This record gives sequence, C-alpha cells and structure tokens, in this order.
Amino acid sequence: MQFQFLRLSARSSFILCYDLAMNRTYAILGTGALGGFYGARLQRAGLEVHFLLNSDYDHVRQHGLICESIDGDFSLPRVNAYRNTRDMPRCDVVCITLKTTQNHLLPTLLPPVVKDDTLVIAMQNGLGNEDEVAAIVGADRVAGGLCFLCSNKTAPGHICHLDYGYVRFGNHNNGVTDRLRAVAADFQRADITAECVEDLRAARWRKLVWNIPYNGLSVILRATTAQLMRDPHTRALVESLMREIAPCEPTITDEFIQKMLRDTDKMKPYKTSMRLDYEAHRPMEIEYIYGNPMRAAQQQGMTVPRIEALYRQLKFLDAANTIRR
Amino acid sequence: MQFQFLRLSARSSFILCYDLAMNRTYAILGTGALGGFYGARLQRAGLEVHFLLNSDYDHVRQHGLICESIDGDFSLPRVNAYRNTRDMPRCDVVCITLKTTQNHLLPTLLPPVVKDDTLVIAMQNGLGNEDEVAAIVGADRVAGGLCFLCSNKTAPGHICHLDYGYVRFGNHNNGVTDRLRAVAADFQRADITAECVEDLRAARWRKLVWNIPYNGLSVILRATTAQLMRDPHTRALVESLMREIAPCEPTITDEFIQKMLRDTDKMKPYKTSMRLDYEAHRPMEIEYIYGNPMRAAQQQGMTVPRIEALYRQLKFLDAANTIRR
Repeated sequence: MQFQFLRLSARSSFILCYDLAMNRTYAILGTGALGGFYGARLQRAGLEVHFLLNSDYDHVRQHGLICESIDGDFSLPRVNAYRNTRDMPRCDVVCITLKTTQNHLLPTLLPPVVKDDTLVIAMQNGLGNEDEVAAIVGADRVAGGLCFLCSNKTAPGHICHLDYGYVRFGNHNNGVTDRLRAVAADFQRADITAECVEDLRAARWRKLVWNIPYNGLSVILRATTAQLMRDPHTRALVESLMREIAPCEPTITDEFIQKMLRDTDKMKPYKTSMRLDYEAHRPMEIEYIYGNPMRAAQQQGMTVPRIEALYRQLKFLDAANTIRR
Repeated sequence: MQFQFLRLSARSSFILCYDLAMNRTYAILGTGALGGFYGARLQRAGLEVHFLLNSDYDHVRQHGLICESIDGDFSLPRVNAYRNTRDMPRCDVVCITLKTTQNHLLPTLLPPVVKDDTLVIAMQNGLGNEDEVAAIVGADRVAGGLCFLCSNKTAPGHICHLDYGYVRFGNHNNGVTDRLRAVAADFQRADITAECVEDLRAARWRKLVWNIPYNGLSVILRATTAQLMRDPHTRALVESLMREIAPCEPTITDEFIQKMLRDTDKMKPYKTSMRLDYEAHRPMEIEYIYGNPMRAAQQQGMTVPRIEALYRQLKFLDAANTIRR
C-alpha cells in the first residue's frame, strides 16, 4: 500500500536523527494551524511525528506539509498521515492540537495512541481540557501546553506562521518533571521557545486574562485588537474584564494587567483565533475560554457579570453562525 | 412669500376647529417618525400644530405629511412647516420629538417658541432630558412624555405607523396638574391613548427596563427582539440586565420584570429604534439610554457592570458607524 510505503520511507530518511531525538515519538492530534506548525517543526528537527488529519488527509498524504513562516519557509514532502488514531502507533508524547470544540472526540481518539508512559499534552485554549483528558488516560499522564502562536491554515496542508510561537508546558498534577523538561527540550531543538512552569492552573488563568477580553470582543464588535485598544471605551472594558478575572489567581496583579495592556498595544493589528473561527463559520471555543472559567469563578463564590455577559452574547452569535453550515 | 401664504391658508382651513381644541397651540420640534406621527394626529383632530423640520422642510412645505397607519391612513396636504424656531409662533405646548442625540441644539431651539405659560414636553427616550430642558426654560415648565410607539419615517414627510402609540405624561417637578391633564386630553382627542403619571422619574426607569436590554443587544448582536427572546442565553442576559436596573426604582419588582418578558414574547418581531439608527448610520441614543442611567446608578453607590459593558460596546460601535458618514 502506498500509505505504508510513504510512512516507512519517511521513517528511514530520519534514521540518523533518532539518537539526537532520543527516540521520542510524537502524535499530533489535529493538523491545523497550530498542530501543523508545531508538528512540522518537530519533524524538521528530526523527530518522528505522526499526524492525525481529517478533511486534509488525502492532500497531505500525497503532498506533505508546507510551512510559510516568518522564521523561514520550509516544506515536508512526506509526513506520516493518518485519518484515524487506530492506525497510528502508540507514541511517547501525544499533543492534542484539536480545537476544544472537538473535545467530545477525545474518549475515542486517545486510547489507541496512549501507552503506559505516554505524556498527553493538551495544547489548547482555555480551562478544563486537562481534567477531561485526565478522565480518559489518568491524571498522571496529563500535561498542558499554552501556545502563544499566531498562525493560519491557508489551504490543505499549508500553514502560514505569522508571529510568536513559544510554548509554556506544565504538568496537570505534578510540578515540573524530567519527562516534561525533555519535551520542552525537543521543542527547543525544533526552534520553538519552550519553558516549563510549576503551576499550570495559574498559567492558564494568566493566559485567560488576554483571551477573555480580546477573543470575545473581537467577534462581538468585529474588531481587531488594535481597534479595541485605540477606543477609550473598549480599552476600559478590556481592562475591567481583566480585573474581573484577577481574583481567580493571585499572580494576576495590577502590574501584570498593565503589562498585558502595554504588550497588546505593541502587537500588530491581529484577528483573534475566535474571530477567524467565527468568520469561517466554525464553532467558537466559548465553553473553554468563557464557560469553564465563569463556572470555576462562580464555584468560588465570585460574580463575574461582564464575563457572563460576553459568554451569553457569544453563545447567541455562535448558534446563529453555525446553523448556516 | 409662498411660505407665508401656505402657513396662513393652513391656519384658515382649521378655523372651525379652534374652539374644539380650546385654542391650545402645539410646536413639534422634530418631524420624524415620532414627531411626525403625533403632530399629524393632533392636526387631524383640529389642533393648531407647528412643525419644525430640517432636511424634509422643502418637501413637507410643498406636499404636507402622509401617515400610513395600522389605525387607518391619512394625509395632511398642508401643514405649518418651519426650518427654524425663530420663525415659529410661541406655542402653548412644545413637544420635543428630536432624538436625544440632538439635545445640544435645545438651548438655541427652545427660547423662541416658549412663553410664560408654555409646557415643554420631552417626548424622548432615556434619562436626563427633563433636567436639560429645565436648565433652559425653568423646571416648572417641563414635563416628559414616554412614547410607546412603533413607527418609521420611510420618505420625506411620509410616516409609517406600525404598532402601539400610547403616551404616558408626567411633570418634571410636580405631580399631575390640570395643564398636563389638558394635554393628555388633546392627545386622546387625536385618538392617541394618553395617561398622566404622578412620578415621571419612576416611569422613566420602568421604561428603561425594556430599552436597556433590547435596544443595545439588538444592535450589538444584530438581532430582533424575537431572536433575543428565543435563545436561552440572550433571554437570560436580558433578564439579568433588567435585574441590574431594579434597585434604581422600587416599583421594578420581580413581577414587573416577568410581565415585561411575557409582553415582549407576545410582540411582533421588531427592530428597535437604536438598531434602525445604527443601520441608517445615524448616531445612537447611547448617553440617554445607557450613560445617564449608569451614572445615576453609580452615584447611588450601585455597580451596574452589565449595563456598563453594553454602554462601552455601543460607544465603540457608534464611533465606527458614524465616522463613515
């Protein structure tokens, strides 16, 4: 079968690099703008990578992946492509790079690629992903990866990397382990800035300080981050949304918020991932970026009325937007 | 001058009705969907009405007003039309039927039409209009009119009356006076359901319970009232916005809120006045429907985070929407 041939030939061409990569194998579950970028970089660095695809499967199996990047373009004419995790080998590291709107598939997708010492890394937005993965594979095999990446998929197997790219890894249940450090080292080897954090939960909340105001408002008000920052009213609303999140995590200080505002001022005008999803009539990641944080705050007895208002506005827009599909 | 001739001839044709109307003269400041409808009805009932116009002046001076109405169509081929209040007679009753976004014009517009015993009625949306009028003409000459009217201006001098129409009058400083009752009686004579209320401020807050959720959300989410009520998330957001207003006015009970939700369920699918303004790239009445109530609540030490969020979203949309003009 051509498929088997392709996979074997891809492997043999990397035999020299196996030692360098210490034989760690990677599964990329979801070969879109994010999974395609990180997976391609890992394979280019000599790691053995297995890509799960859906609609792009036929194209990528034949033509591989193309990565246009601010760091330099490259293409991988041959990659290990799969339509189903049942056909994939069990891997040392499984990167979940699906949108959270696909998380209902995880109980089916994960078991075939996981072995006893696999580390499953939820490289996804928002809150609650690791809990769901832990319920499937056990909490000790779960980590999270916070991706600070600006990339789009512009055609099947064609990724455009526009800006950033660094990843912050943290274990779900433990602090930093050697296994997690090894994964970060693999990413570094693939020219991706990567670091490990002791407290994944705190890091997720800190990332929400950006995601909650900008993702939702960019959809609701059809605006770029730059437009939201330029108008004094939306700038004030962004800041009050950030302040509403602050009591959930003590490291979200006023200083942290002011720095995030300044950093966003310096960013290029930028369409958020939620706005790209909305414009493409894809479901938006509302439950993980808004619903789960809102419910977590409420369980701590906090009221988060502005976040709740955005949540409900987005749910309304999402329902109307995806009906048309 | 043709203009003088028209005005005189319009007057003489109504001479028979003067007695019936007890000689009360009306100035309609702003002959749009609302002022055009009420003014035309008053003139049809035999009252002497003087209409202030702007862009439609030439057309209305020549062709008068047409009113298509669910209660029966009628036209007034001749009306007293003015481009400037300096040319108008001082009237017994001055109805301010301009959008609140034009209130900055009132210090110029009002003095020429007001005499000692004139009653100036702000027939406008939101909070704070009467205070501004009082600062110009003195508090004892000021009343407010809450208009429950669904009408559009479809062409110059052409009003489409789609639904409702009743008016609730209240004095700014006093309870119900004979003068206010006489105005309500004139409106009744013009086939407009009209009543007088003791507490104008309370009535204005109760009307905001409808205006605040539906006007803003219909613009921000590009939705009709029916769509907002059908979706469980926006329905919940509408209700929590109503609850945020409730502490401002003790008569806004849970029962009142539930009745307002039920009444809206029964309404025809309906574009709010703010949405019509937005779609026509006209400035929206944000400061009177959101800004003034928000500041009034804050001055009482209340926090109204959902109203504030809507206020800021609308200010952003308004700035982008009117720049294009």
